[in-house]
Amino acid sequence: MDILRVREELVCTRRVPGLKQASLRVLEGERGTLLVATDPVGVPPGKWVFATVGTAARHAMGDYDVHTDLTICGIIDHWEP
Amino acid sequence: MDILRVREELVCTRRVPGLKQASLRVLEGERGTLLVATDPVGVPPGKWVFATVGTAARHAMGDYDVHTDLTICGIIDHWEP
Amino acid sequence: MDILRVREELVCTRRVPGLKQASLRVLEGERGTLLVATDPVGVPPGKWVFATVGTAARHAMGDYDVHTDLTICGIIDHWEP
Amino acid sequence: MDILRVREELVCTRRVPGLKQASLRVLEGERGTLLVATDPVGVPPGKWVFATVGTAARHAMGDYDVHTDLTICGIIDHWEP
Amino acid sequence: MDILRVREELVCTRRVPGLKQASLRVLEGERGTLLVATDPVGVPPGKWVFATVGTAARHAMGDYDVHTDLTICGIIDHWEP
Repeated sequence: MDILRVREELVCTRRVPGLKQASLRVLEGERGTLLVATDPVGVPPGKWVFATVGTAARHAMGDYDVHTDLTICGIIDHWEP
Repeated sequence: MDILRVREELVCTRRVPGLKQASLRVLEGERGTLLVATDPVGVPPGKWVFATVGTAARHAMGDYDVHTDLTICGIIDHWEP
Repeated sequence: MDILRVREELVCTRRVPGLKQASLRVLEGERGTLLVATDPVGVPPGKWVFATVGTAARHAMGDYDVHTDLTICGIIDHWEP
Repeated sequence: MDILRVREELVCTRRVPGLKQASLRVLEGERGTLLVATDPVGVPPGKWVFATVGTAARHAMGDYDVHTDLTICGIIDHWEP
Repeated sequence: MDILRVREELVCTRRVPGLKQASLRVLEGERGTLLVATDPVGVPPGKWVFATVGTAARHAMGDYDVHTDLTICGIIDHWEP
């Protein structure tokens, strides 16, 4: 699972139906890579999280039918990048 | 999910049957990487989108039998690269 | 899906049974990375193609039991690298 | 499977239910990349391990319903990086 | 599928049960990356091989229940790196 920091919410009006009402976040890796993740935890910007990829991302949403490939799994209590 | 910009349509006459009539787009990442994605949304060139990989890409097509590994999931409303 | 150029056929006498009689090609990415793909299309060397990864690669073979993770999906009509 | 070194335990109070009580470790690759893995073996910090990704990571937990994408599979007896 | 060279056998006494008695090899990519793969072919060190990732790696073992994500699929007859 990757270690990433929540940067902001992603506003996306026009999306595929398979994403349903999932909350989307822009995440930033340690080297500046930006990714979009679904967020079942409700994480505020600035927090360090770890996120899971692949089919596990759909399972982690608690709803396998959400068509994501990256889902936030938890907030890291303390992290010094 | 990756953040990418739509560059152009991909013209491909000779393809495997499993792609069916799926619309194909050439996408460009922030570092210039070029990828091919299926597009169920209908996105014009120049727009920033996010796209899902793996089995989720097939689900996102609304037809699991389309043999893609990258599908556009939505248009990002505002994006400053 | 990745954009790659067909470099040559891969000769491989000793292989796992799960690859069956699949035709194998050495593909080269834009940055020189070399990969091996199964080819259900029959592409001559020098052509630019796009190829799918993961479980979609097995579906694209038209035979899910071929144990590949990269399959050529189509020839790109025009490509300027 | 990737070769990684165990750096420390990951403390994560707020997590998705799908991770259950899985033990989490921060792993470091040869080039300094940091990743989070589930650990069914019980590996102390400093050890070199190899870890599996994707759906195999869930199988390796001995419980397919743990929503991980990286699981430690074994401790390497001797490793000179 | 990736093109890799067999470097040595991997000795690993303490491993998850899901790897069973699978033979493990350390493989080296063209840019020096080291990976661990399961080997159903029996390849001696020094040989160039190609290996499959993901669920195809489990299928290629001839036993889907071996929890690997990288399996050697064949020895390349001639390879000039």
